[in-house]
Amino acid sequence: MQNDLTLNLKHFIQSLYAQGVRHVVISPGSRTTPVALLWAEFAATVQTDMQIHMAVDERDAGFLGLGIAKTQQVPVALLATSGTATVNYAPAIAEAAVSHVPLIAVTTDRPEELQGIGAPQTLDQQALFGTHVKKAMTVTMQSTTPDTTEYIDYAVQDAVHLAGQQPAGPIQINLPLRKPLMPELGAVWPNVETVQYAEAEAVLEVPESLRTQFAEAVMFLDGPAESTTYQKQLQAVAERHALPILTDVLGQVRPNANAITGIDALIESGCVKAYPTPRLIVRFGGTPVSAKVLQWIKAENISVVQVGKNFVGRDHSRVARYQLDVTETAFLMAFDQAVAPQMPGFLEQWQTSREVVAQTVARQSLSDVGVVKAMACLPAETQLFIANSMAIRDYDNYWQPQHAVTAWANRGANGIDGTVATATGMALGHANNWLAIGDLALFHDMNGLMLAKQAQVNLNVLVINNDGGGIFSFLPQAQAQDYFETLFGTPQALSVEKIAALYDAPYTQITDLAQLDALVQTPAKGLRFIEVITDRSENVAQHQMILAALAGGTIDAND
Amino acid sequence: MQNDLTLNLKHFIQSLYAQGVRHVVISPGSRTTPVALLWAEFAATVQTDMQIHMAVDERDAGFLGLGIAKTQQVPVALLATSGTATVNYAPAIAEAAVSHVPLIAVTTDRPEELQGIGAPQTLDQQALFGTHVKKAMTVTMQSTTPDTTEYIDYAVQDAVHLAGQQPAGPIQINLPLRKPLMPELGAVWPNVETVQYAEAEAVLEVPESLRTQFAEAVMFLDGPAESTTYQKQLQAVAERHALPILTDVLGQVRPNANAITGIDALIESGCVKAYPTPRLIVRFGGTPVSAKVLQWIKAENISVVQVGKNFVGRDHSRVARYQLDVTETAFLMAFDQAVAPQMPGFLEQWQTSREVVAQTVARQSLSDVGVVKAMACLPAETQLFIANSMAIRDYDNYWQPQHAVTAWANRGANGIDGTVATATGMALGHANNWLAIGDLALFHDMNGLMLAKQAQVNLNVLVINNDGGGIFSFLPQAQAQDYFETLFGTPQALSVEKIAALYDAPYTQITDLAQLDALVQTPAKGLRFIEVITDRSENVAQHQMILAALAGGTIDAND
Repeated sequence: MQNDLTLNLKHFIQSLYAQGVRHVVISPGSRTTPVALLWAEFAATVQTDMQIHMAVDERDAGFLGLGIAKTQQVPVALLATSGTATVNYAPAIAEAAVSHVPLIAVTTDRPEELQGIGAPQTLDQQALFGTHVKKAMTVTMQSTTPDTTEYIDYAVQDAVHLAGQQPAGPIQINLPLRKPLMPELGAVWPNVETVQYAEAEAVLEVPESLRTQFAEAVMFLDGPAESTTYQKQLQAVAERHALPILTDVLGQVRPNANAITGIDALIESGCVKAYPTPRLIVRFGGTPVSAKVLQWIKAENISVVQVGKNFVGRDHSRVARYQLDVTETAFLMAFDQAVAPQMPGFLEQWQTSREVVAQTVARQSLSDVGVVKAMACLPAETQLFIANSMAIRDYDNYWQPQHAVTAWANRGANGIDGTVATATGMALGHANNWLAIGDLALFHDMNGLMLAKQAQVNLNVLVINNDGGGIFSFLPQAQAQDYFETLFGTPQALSVEKIAALYDAPYTQITDLAQLDALVQTPAKGLRFIEVITDRSENVAQHQMILAALAGGTIDAND
Repeated sequence: MQNDLTLNLKHFIQSLYAQGVRHVVISPGSRTTPVALLWAEFAATVQTDMQIHMAVDERDAGFLGLGIAKTQQVPVALLATSGTATVNYAPAIAEAAVSHVPLIAVTTDRPEELQGIGAPQTLDQQALFGTHVKKAMTVTMQSTTPDTTEYIDYAVQDAVHLAGQQPAGPIQINLPLRKPLMPELGAVWPNVETVQYAEAEAVLEVPESLRTQFAEAVMFLDGPAESTTYQKQLQAVAERHALPILTDVLGQVRPNANAITGIDALIESGCVKAYPTPRLIVRFGGTPVSAKVLQWIKAENISVVQVGKNFVGRDHSRVARYQLDVTETAFLMAFDQAVAPQMPGFLEQWQTSREVVAQTVARQSLSDVGVVKAMACLPAETQLFIANSMAIRDYDNYWQPQHAVTAWANRGANGIDGTVATATGMALGHANNWLAIGDLALFHDMNGLMLAKQAQVNLNVLVINNDGGGIFSFLPQAQAQDYFETLFGTPQALSVEKIAALYDAPYTQITDLAQLDALVQTPAKGLRFIEVITDRSENVAQHQMILAALAGGTIDAND
């Protein structure tokens, strides 16, 4: 068993090689010791087309690499020891930035514990080249986390791809290394899987290796849509070829005959085992609301193709080995030609899951999930903005809209700030708008209500008031009862009725879901508040009950 | 006549509008005064679909803009006054960065003279949002330079385009404004031309407005090639449709039957007037070595299409109104279908220019230009690296290679540093390599010679030694005789022979061009030095003589 430094550096060197790095210009130094030695071993024993060039003067090392990269039009790595040595790359990096040459500056560094306290040959090497590099990343090599190795494979390959992607340009990879620096030589080299990137016209020929898998069991995963240009085409292709669609609540394809909803609950309850496991999942859009779906894909070893120019390399589960840097529409057009007939019954079996979820979570009493179920009746052309963080999860699992309702949320960075203001932006110029929000997110952006009032938007603010942060009750800290309410529950004793009064808006407290049904059918002119008071403990119990029922339902689905 | 502030802000507002900005969220403040007032006037009197939204709380202003931008999928501007007000945009900018929303944060600022010396409401607003914005730019509004206005049109439109280009994301435009801040209201609004951007599949339909121009007189400008994937196709299209190609020395299409060389000299001598002016120029590659060609295009009001993903928006002459964000090969394929027959004789007339240049600059005596002429005999498969800054200009104008020689230089940032090392990088694994370099650039990168020696590359180093910086003799400072040699000529009294001895390389001083002819036919094994000693004053005189002869030749070409 080789040490972490050796193993991770081997992944690092092989990841560079996997994305086309065949030349490295090394300047001698001490901090570079393990990298230089392993690179030499790699070139001597693993891949003999890997060429190592030595250059004592780092300024010239940079330009030598530039000369190779620009004339052969390949990515070239540089390797220098810590301190001013690395700064000497700056002129060549600057030229590479302007002339679009994919130089990879690998700068070894002192570890964190030696930074900024007078250690020799130590300076701030992070973001050393400012805007002259397309990306500056620091990667840890000495770590016992298994994630580290996998992250190196994925992120380093992504970075080299980025350097070559037009407009091309240099990148910096900073490697803090602590002593002892000697690697283990002569040990076995691990296998590093190559991430396949396809760009522009090239993707119109979908990778051959995938075509064979197309014949098996293909599923679409339609994540949060940051563009609404492709959903109709996606649905048409899915329907034409009988592919199930795992629909994120923000994916803009609910309702649809092929839609699977509640995947997070299906997985958590174990009920997902009742359905045939897909062989290939094609991912559209951003990171899905359901964290479990990516874990499930990884655990089941399902192949993943990631599509879309906004999302290349943005799979934090590090599973997607096929990264298609093309528009969704271009991919769907090609895919439509390439996909083969699916396993008989594949779609039909999955379709039953939607009914299982719907029946298990049949009309509920007045509760968090009960409200979500009732909101399925929103009329067509409604826009629904869903707040983080408890609300969005419930809607993702249990909201099966009957009509074409567009659903939005701030799921880039998942903050609870600015929710009312963002929903107001959504509502501008649109007739029927709803905001589903908890009391804490509402309080956080009270000022946003002034915008909604002044802009005179039609906005139904549906507040689930459980007096505090509901999601924390599902997390391990809920066990720390002495501190929980103070640090996490944070009840604000907020009066939604008085907030409504502050903004001269009508207010209704719902005590029966039938009241909500009626309000859903008579959307607001202007700003309107609807409050449902729930209990955080009961909410946890209700969710557990639903999961238990789903787990029971597993057996039925297998029948 | 309205003042600069008013005029430039009108260009700013209209440039945003031209690229699709129909919403701005304004937070009240003092420093924003002229921008807010003019935006309001614009919305009221010029483009009534421009919508202004007010938001007192800047954090919510950011999220309101985010809500509009993400749901309507359009770029949205924010406008805030200087100080912490602008910092409140940070949460919405961060969300926009991760969820790929094109927010345009316009932050007004105190002018330079109030920075960092205790002025109120003043903080460092440049690069306020770090890597969360795709671009952070500061644009001056109060300037009397006509360039300012044109730069606003061009750079602001480019920035908005960048924000929307996938992966989309926010940008920051910082506007330092000094008092008085009141704009002139009620004055006429200038016309701002829209820059047309075309992306991906869209470009396959070349803009209709250009098709008509295709019928006229089209020319290719093949600038420095940062990719050698398209030159064969470019030449085939040019030959098929009888289009002249203005060939930059680094464009990798010399020699070619349609090639025009020496455009810089043709323009400077006035000789270019003898040839029919093109109506449309399609630009490939980077900024051409010839500065005059871009000035000529601008002066003659020639339409310009700029092609290539590395170069969208990178026309510092600010002429190219059509920016095609596609691969060169995709464009050429579409163009090949679209281009109409050319004006009779258009190509043929331009072709005579190459002969005019060749004959006017017939074989010269031993001199800078004489050497360039002699180097035309380099055999096929040679790689030639050309140093900045005098050498590259001479080769651009007067080098008409007889065989397919690939020519390279560092023309991204045009430095004289690292030339030998870069040339060594080029030479690795290639049989026949030449480096054309002056004595000053050679001295600057003496250490690069160690790399060439150690790598055992075949590299002929052809040194034009005029003991100092030759290009400065062509610039106005040459008149400042008391200081010129010390500050600009900088003679180093370098012995090229001793440098050769240091690296154990053969050395020849050329005293007759026939010697060079012979050496060109017998390229080096390993490193070899060839020195030509010239005189800076004589060099200036020779260049002037050539231009005078070309000016005379104008009459012949007209005959």
